[in-house]
Amino acid sequence: MNVFPTSPLIERLIDLALEEDLGVGDVTTQALISPDLQGEAHLRAKQDLVVAGLPVAARVFQKLDPKLVFEPQAEEGQAVAAGTVLARLTGPVVAILTGERTALNFLQRLSGIATNTRQMVSLIAGTKAALVDTRKTTPGWRALEKYAVRLGGARNHRTGLYDGVLIKNNHLTAASSITLAVKQAREQAHHLLKIEVEVTDLAGLQEALAAGADVIMLDNMDEASMTQAVKLTAGRALLEASGSMSAARLPKVAATGVNLISMGALTHSAPAADIHLRLIRTWR
Amino acid sequence: MNVFPTSPLIERLIDLALEEDLGVGDVTTQALISPDLQGEAHLRAKQDLVVAGLPVAARVFQKLDPKLVFEPQAEEGQAVAAGTVLARLTGPVVAILTGERTALNFLQRLSGIATNTRQMVSLIAGTKAALVDTRKTTPGWRALEKYAVRLGGARNHRTGLYDGVLIKNNHLTAASSITLAVKQAREQAHHLLKIEVEVTDLAGLQEALAAGADVIMLDNMDEASMTQAVKLTAGRALLEASGSMSAARLPKVAATGVNLISMGALTHSAPAADIHLRLIRTWR
Amino acid sequence: MNVFPTSPLIERLIDLALEEDLGVGDVTTQALISPDLQGEAHLRAKQDLVVAGLPVAARVFQKLDPKLVFEPQAEEGQAVAAGTVLARLTGPVVAILTGERTALNFLQRLSGIATNTRQMVSLIAGTKAALVDTRKTTPGWRALEKYAVRLGGARNHRTGLYDGVLIKNNHLTAASSITLAVKQAREQAHHLLKIEVEVTDLAGLQEALAAGADVIMLDNMDEASMTQAVKLTAGRALLEASGSMSAARLPKVAATGVNLISMGALTHSAPAADIHLRLIRTWR
Amino acid sequence: MNVFPTSPLIERLIDLALEEDLGVGDVTTQALISPDLQGEAHLRAKQDLVVAGLPVAARVFQKLDPKLVFEPQAEEGQAVAAGTVLARLTGPVVAILTGERTALNFLQRLSGIATNTRQMVSLIAGTKAALVDTRKTTPGWRALEKYAVRLGGARNHRTGLYDGVLIKNNHLTAASSITLAVKQAREQAHHLLKIEVEVTDLAGLQEALAAGADVIMLDNMDEASMTQAVKLTAGRALLEASGSMSAARLPKVAATGVNLISMGALTHSAPAADIHLRLIRTWR
Amino acid sequence: MNVFPTSPLIERLIDLALEEDLGVGDVTTQALISPDLQGEAHLRAKQDLVVAGLPVAARVFQKLDPKLVFEPQAEEGQAVAAGTVLARLTGPVVAILTGERTALNFLQRLSGIATNTRQMVSLIAGTKAALVDTRKTTPGWRALEKYAVRLGGARNHRTGLYDGVLIKNNHLTAASSITLAVKQAREQAHHLLKIEVEVTDLAGLQEALAAGADVIMLDNMDEASMTQAVKLTAGRALLEASGSMSAARLPKVAATGVNLISMGALTHSAPAADIHLRLIRTWR
Amino acid sequence: MNVFPTSPLIERLIDLALEEDLGVGDVTTQALISPDLQGEAHLRAKQDLVVAGLPVAARVFQKLDPKLVFEPQAEEGQAVAAGTVLARLTGPVVAILTGERTALNFLQRLSGIATNTRQMVSLIAGTKAALVDTRKTTPGWRALEKYAVRLGGARNHRTGLYDGVLIKNNHLTAASSITLAVKQAREQAHHLLKIEVEVTDLAGLQEALAAGADVIMLDNMDEASMTQAVKLTAGRALLEASGSMSAARLPKVAATGVNLISMGALTHSAPAADIHLRLIRTWR
Repeated sequence: MNVFPTSPLIERLIDLALEEDLGVGDVTTQALISPDLQGEAHLRAKQDLVVAGLPVAARVFQKLDPKLVFEPQAEEGQAVAAGTVLARLTGPVVAILTGERTALNFLQRLSGIATNTRQMVSLIAGTKAALVDTRKTTPGWRALEKYAVRLGGARNHRTGLYDGVLIKNNHLTAASSITLAVKQAREQAHHLLKIEVEVTDLAGLQEALAAGADVIMLDNMDEASMTQAVKLTAGRALLEASGSMSAARLPKVAATGVNLISMGALTHSAPAADIHLRLIRTWR
Repeated sequence: MNVFPTSPLIERLIDLALEEDLGVGDVTTQALISPDLQGEAHLRAKQDLVVAGLPVAARVFQKLDPKLVFEPQAEEGQAVAAGTVLARLTGPVVAILTGERTALNFLQRLSGIATNTRQMVSLIAGTKAALVDTRKTTPGWRALEKYAVRLGGARNHRTGLYDGVLIKNNHLTAASSITLAVKQAREQAHHLLKIEVEVTDLAGLQEALAAGADVIMLDNMDEASMTQAVKLTAGRALLEASGSMSAARLPKVAATGVNLISMGALTHSAPAADIHLRLIRTWR
Repeated sequence: MNVFPTSPLIERLIDLALEEDLGVGDVTTQALISPDLQGEAHLRAKQDLVVAGLPVAARVFQKLDPKLVFEPQAEEGQAVAAGTVLARLTGPVVAILTGERTALNFLQRLSGIATNTRQMVSLIAGTKAALVDTRKTTPGWRALEKYAVRLGGARNHRTGLYDGVLIKNNHLTAASSITLAVKQAREQAHHLLKIEVEVTDLAGLQEALAAGADVIMLDNMDEASMTQAVKLTAGRALLEASGSMSAARLPKVAATGVNLISMGALTHSAPAADIHLRLIRTWR
Repeated sequence: MNVFPTSPLIERLIDLALEEDLGVGDVTTQALISPDLQGEAHLRAKQDLVVAGLPVAARVFQKLDPKLVFEPQAEEGQAVAAGTVLARLTGPVVAILTGERTALNFLQRLSGIATNTRQMVSLIAGTKAALVDTRKTTPGWRALEKYAVRLGGARNHRTGLYDGVLIKNNHLTAASSITLAVKQAREQAHHLLKIEVEVTDLAGLQEALAAGADVIMLDNMDEASMTQAVKLTAGRALLEASGSMSAARLPKVAATGVNLISMGALTHSAPAADIHLRLIRTWR
Repeated sequence: MNVFPTSPLIERLIDLALEEDLGVGDVTTQALISPDLQGEAHLRAKQDLVVAGLPVAARVFQKLDPKLVFEPQAEEGQAVAAGTVLARLTGPVVAILTGERTALNFLQRLSGIATNTRQMVSLIAGTKAALVDTRKTTPGWRALEKYAVRLGGARNHRTGLYDGVLIKNNHLTAASSITLAVKQAREQAHHLLKIEVEVTDLAGLQEALAAGADVIMLDNMDEASMTQAVKLTAGRALLEASGSMSAARLPKVAATGVNLISMGALTHSAPAADIHLRLIRTWR
Repeated sequence: MNVFPTSPLIERLIDLALEEDLGVGDVTTQALISPDLQGEAHLRAKQDLVVAGLPVAARVFQKLDPKLVFEPQAEEGQAVAAGTVLARLTGPVVAILTGERTALNFLQRLSGIATNTRQMVSLIAGTKAALVDTRKTTPGWRALEKYAVRLGGARNHRTGLYDGVLIKNNHLTAASSITLAVKQAREQAHHLLKIEVEVTDLAGLQEALAAGADVIMLDNMDEASMTQAVKLTAGRALLEASGSMSAARLPKVAATGVNLISMGALTHSAPAADIHLRLIRTWR
C-alpha cells in the first residue's frame, strides 16, 4: 500500500514549480498554438528505469488545464525497459506543451531516485538488513523523495525532526552524557516516539544500551566494529549503520548483521532518469 | 555582479523546506537543549568545491532565530580546498541544531552544481563557445540553480517559458512550418524578446536562417554537422549545440565553432558536495 | 490568438477583490434573498465599447458559486454598441448579487482600457508605427491591463523588469556611459533578451547605435528630432518614441517614421467603460 | 486622524505588484549597477496635486531593501505645487531603480484620486451635502482608494458588502417589497448596522420612509425630484443622491438639500497624477 | 435564512486544521487500509443537542477526497435526541478515517455552542430582550462561532472591530469625554454604522444619551440600576446589558426591560457536544 | 524545558485571528485615538489561574505595532492569584486597544486549559499514572493547546496522525485482525514510531499483547477490568485508560495501575480563564 503522499506541502511545491517556469505565460506556445488545437502526446522512458512520479506529472497538467486527460500506462514502482510509454496525454496542445518541462523535471528526478534505490536494495537482498533513507533530501521535496525511495524498495527513516528522537553528536556536545540525554528525551517526548542515539565507538554503544535507547546509529564505523556491535547488542536495540555508504560497501555492511543501513546518496546524488515527451498527433 | 537572486519564490521554497523538516518542532533538541544555551558552530567543506548557497543557509538560520549570527568565511563562487571553514555561526544552540540539516541540504546541492559547472566550463576554456544551462532544473529551484550555474562560470539560458521564444520540435509538430512559426512569434512576442528555433538537420537550419531566427538550436547533431552549420550560418544567427552533452564531448563540440553549448546535466545530475556542520563549543 | 492570461497572480488579485468586498459576507443579500432562489441577469453595455474582461467576470462568479452559469454573448475584443448584452448569467441569485460589483469593477476598467486603446490605434492606422503600452499599469493588474491593450489592438512592451533590458536615464546617471552599459548588459543578460537604451538627443542616439543597441527609445523628443533620428538610424535599430503622447500628437509622431510609440495613458488614465448588471427574472 | 490603513490585504497587493514587475529580477539594474553603489533620489510632483500614497511608496522600497531610507518631504493630503519634492530616498541604488516604477504607479494613482476628489469637494463647499465615494473602486485597491478619497476631503460610504445594509433595485426585483425588505434586514443584520434603501421615485421614497429606513438613496433622480424628496423626508432619514454625477452637476444637486452625494468617478475614472523619480547623485 | 458563512478565512482555518492533524500523512490508515476499500460511516449524536457544523464537516471530507459522499441526515439548527444519525458518509475508507477527528472536532465545538445558546435563549423567551454574542470567540473561529450562536437562536453583536463603533472604557480613558467621543465617531465613521457607548453608571448613561449614542452598553450594572436606566432612556437608544451573565441571572436581567443582553460565555466556555463517527460496513 | 512552539501554523492562526477581528480596521479606535498617543496597560488575572499564552499575546501586539513593548510579569506555567498583573504593555495606545480582544481571547483560552489541567493532574499526584491529552483539540489550535496542557503539568499524546501509530476500532472494522494490523503497521511505519492498539476487552488486550503492541489503549473499560488488564500485561506494554474521564473518576482509574490516562476534556471543554486588560495612563 505505497500511496502517493498528497499534502499541502506538495501542492505548494507544484505551484512553485509552475510559477517559476510559466511566469506571465508561455510566450512561444501562445504565439504559435491555437487554444482549440487538441493533441495526443506520450511520456516515454529513454532508459531502463523504475517509474516514480506519474501522479505529480498528472497534477501538473491538471493544474494547467482540467480538460487534459492523463492516462498512466505504467504502475508507480514498476521496472520498465527503455522505450516504454509511461503515460498518454490527450487534450489541449497548449497545456501539453506548457506543462511538458515541469512534468518531466518531476518525473525524471523521482524516477532517478527510485531506479537508483532499486539497484542499491538489490545489493543487500537476502540479508536481514533494511536499506533506509535519511533527511538529506532536496529541500521542498521531502515527502516526494521519501515516496520514491519506498517505490525503489527501501524503507524510510523518520520524516523530519518531529516524528522520532535522534540524538546526534552535536546534541551530545551540548548535553552532558548519553545516559542523561536518553533519560531527558524519554521524559519529554510523547510515548509513541522511539529514541535513537548516534555513537561512534563501542563505548558509546555500551552507554546507549545501558541508557535504554531503542535504536543506535553506528556512525562511520568499520565493518569489524559493526560486527562487534551486533554481538554486544544481542538484540537489545536496533542497530543502524550510517556514513560513507557506497554500492561497493553495502553488502559488507549488511553482512555484519546490522538491522538498518542508511544512505544519504539515495536522495541527494541520484542522477535523473531520461524520459521524453513527444507530441504524436494533433486535431481540431 | 553575480547577485543572489532574492525573490518571493525562493522565500517560499525556504519556508517549505523548514516546514517539512520541522513540522511541529524538533523533539530531540527541545528535549535536550536549553533555549538559553549559546554556541559556536562551523560549516566546513569536506571536499574541494566551489562555494554556492551561503545566503540561503544564512536565511534558513535567520528564519529560525534572528539572534543567531551567521558570518560567511568564504565568497560565493570561490574555489576552496577540503577542510575550509565556509561560515561561522554563533548564537542559540537550539537554532543551530534545528536548522543544520536544512541549511546543509541547500548548501550541498548548490555547491555541487557550482563545482560541477566549474569543471565543465574549464573543459572549453579558450574556445569561443559559452556553456549555458537549460530548464532541466529541480522544480522549485529554478532561480537558485541558475545562480549556482553562474557562480560556476557558465551562462544562463532563458529563465522560463516567459522570457524568450524557443520554438521546439513539439511546437513544429503542431504548427505548419518553421517559416510561419517564426513569423507568428515575431508578431506576437514583444519587441525585446529574441526568437530561437530548434532544428535537427541542415535543411531545418537553412529554413530557420531564411525565416530570420535570432538563435538556432542544433539538436542532437554530430560534430561534423555542427561544423557545417557554423559555416552555413556565417554569423547570421547564434548557434546553440544541444543534446547528449558529456565532459568528454564538450571540447569537440566547442571546436565546431558554435556560440553556445547547453547541458541539462549541469543542474539535473550534479552530485551533492560534501559539507558538514560541527558544534565547536557552548556557553551560557 | 489573444489568449486570456490565466496565472496565479491574477487568481490572487481576484481573491483579493472578493475578500475586500465581501469580508464576512454580504449582509444585505443574506438577509433578503433565499439561497434557493434562482435567477437570470444580464451584463449590458451602457455605451459603445470594446469588450475586455469577460473571463475575469466569469471567474469572479465561479469562485462565488460554481453552480452559476456564465454565458458570454460577445467576444473579447469585439466592438459593441450601447445596449448590447455582454453576458447572460443564470443560477443562484445570491451569487449574482454578491458578485455584481466586483465583476463590474473588473469589466469596466478593462473594457475602458480596450476602448481607449482602440481609439488611439485608429489614429495611426496605415502608418508603419506600432502603438505599445508601458509599465505604467495599475499595481496588481499588469497582466490584465496588458491583455486589454492587446484586445484594443496595440502591442505590448516588455512585461516587467525581467523580460527585456531597458537602460534608462537613471541607470546612466549611475553607470559610466551608454557604450559601457550596453556592453555589460550584453554580457550579463541571457542570449534571448534584446537591449533597449533611452536617449534624449541625437548624440545619445549615435552612441547607442555604435554600442549596438537593438532598440532605442527617443525620450521626449520633438517630431523634427525624431525624423532626423529615423534617418540617422537607417534601420540599424528599432526606434521607440516615448513621453507626453496624446491623441492629437500620435499621427504626427507616427509620421516621423519611428517603429514604436509607447503611451502610458493607455493604462494609467483610461476612463472606466459604463456597464450594468440587471436582474431580469427569478424563480425557484 | 486620517490614518493610513495598514492591513494584510494591502500587504498582499504590494507583494503582488512587486512580483508582477520584478519576476525573477531586474535584469537591467543587475547587469549595470553594483550592489554597493549608494545614491540619493527624489520623488517630485510634475503638476499641482494633493499628495496621497507616500506610505505605500515607502513600503515598496522597504520591502526591496530595508537599508534604503525614505524621508517624506510632504504630508499626506497636502496640496503641493508642481516641482515640489515629495520624498527623498537615500541608500542602495539597486533598490531605488528596481522599485521606482512600482512606487510611482501607486503614488500617481492615489494622488490622482486625492487631487480629483479635492476639486470635486470644493465645488460643494459651504453646502450641507457631503461628498462620498462608492464601491466602484479598482479591485484589490478598496482600502487604498477610500483612503485617498478621505485625503481629498470627501467621506467614505460603506467599505464593502459587510458593513452596512444597502437594498438596491436588483434586491427588490428578487424580494417582495421595500417594506418587507427593510423589516427582514432589521431582523437579520446586527444592531450596529444601519439600513439604506435605493429608490427611483417619490413613491419608493414614501415606502422606504414608512418602513423605517435609516438612509435613502435617490437613484438617478433629477434635481426637482430631489428637492421634493428633501421636503417629504423632513429629516426622518438621511438622503443620498446617486447616479450620473459630474463636476457641472454637483453644485445643483447639493443645492437640493440632500445629505450625501455619491460619485463613482471619484475612484474609477480619476486620471493619474504626474510624478517623477530622479536619481540625483551616487557614491560608494 | 441562516446561511453557512463560506469565506476565505474559514477555508484557511479548515486547511490549518487538516495540516496540523495530518502532517505528512495518517501513518496508521496508510499502513492498514487499502486505497480501494469503500465504506459507510455514520456521524451520530451521543447526547441531546442542537446540530451545528455539518457543512464544515462535509468540507473537511471533501478536501480529503472529493469522491467521498457526505449526506446530512439532520438540518443545521435542528434539536435532535441522543442516538440520532447526523450524517451518512459513503466512499473511500481511507478518507473517512483520516478526516474523522478533524470533522468531529469542528462539529462537537459548534454543536456545543448551538446547544448551550439554545438553552440560554429559552431562559428569556417571551421577554423583549434579545440575547447576543460578543467578540470573545475562539481566535480563528469568529464567523463559525457566530453562525453557531445564530443557529442556537441568539443574535449576533458586531462581527469585528470594523462593522460598528463601540466606545469602551479604555477608549474613554484615552479620550476626553463621552460627548466628544460620540461626536468624533459620528464624523469619522461612515453613515451606515451606528455608535454604541459603554457606561458604568447612570451619569454615564445620561451623557451618552445627550451625546446621541444609538446604543448604550450597561457594563456590570445590577438589575436595579438597569431598571432605572431603561426608564431614563425611554426608548431614545437601545440598551445592552453586559458583564457577568449566567443562566441564573438572565431572566432577571431580561425583566429590567433592556433590549439586548450580551454573554461572552456563549462562545468562550460552551462545553463540546458528544458526537461519534462509526464505520458501519466496508466493501470493495 | 517547556518551550513555546513557534511554527508557521501558529503564525497563520494569529494572522487569521487578527484578520477576522480587524477586517478593514478598528473604526472606533481610529476615530478617537491619535496615532501619537502613548500609554501603559496591564493584563491582569481576575481569578486564580495557571498562566499560559503570554508569548502569543506578545506576538499579537508585535504584529500590530513593533514599537509596542510587551513585558511579561509572570512565567508561563506559573500559578498566580486573582489580581496578579501578567504583563505590562507600553507604547502606542492605538495598538493596545486594537489588539486587546484578540490577545485576551488567546490568553483566556490557553490559561483556562492550563488551569484546568493543573487541577486534574493534582488529583492523581503520587500515583504512577501520567495524565495525557488527546487529538480532541480545537481545530487550528493543536500545538497551542498541547503546549497549555504541558504547562498544566500533564503530558502529550501523539501530536497528529503522523507521529505515532494508533490502531482504533474503526481501523479494525476495516482490517482483518489486531494481529495482522500490528504486523502491517510494523512493516510500513518507520522504525522510530511505536504502535498503539485500542481494545475494548481483555480478549482484545491478549491479542494486542501477543501481536507485540508497544502501547494498548483500554477504551471505556471499568476500573475492575483495568486492574485485571494491568495484571495480565505485567509490564509487557504501556497501558492507556481512555473514555469518559472525569475529575471524580481520575483517582480510581489511576489506582488500577495503568500507565497513562487520556482525557479529551482537558482541551475540548475547559472554561476560559478570566483576564482583563486595563489602560492605566496615557501621554504624548
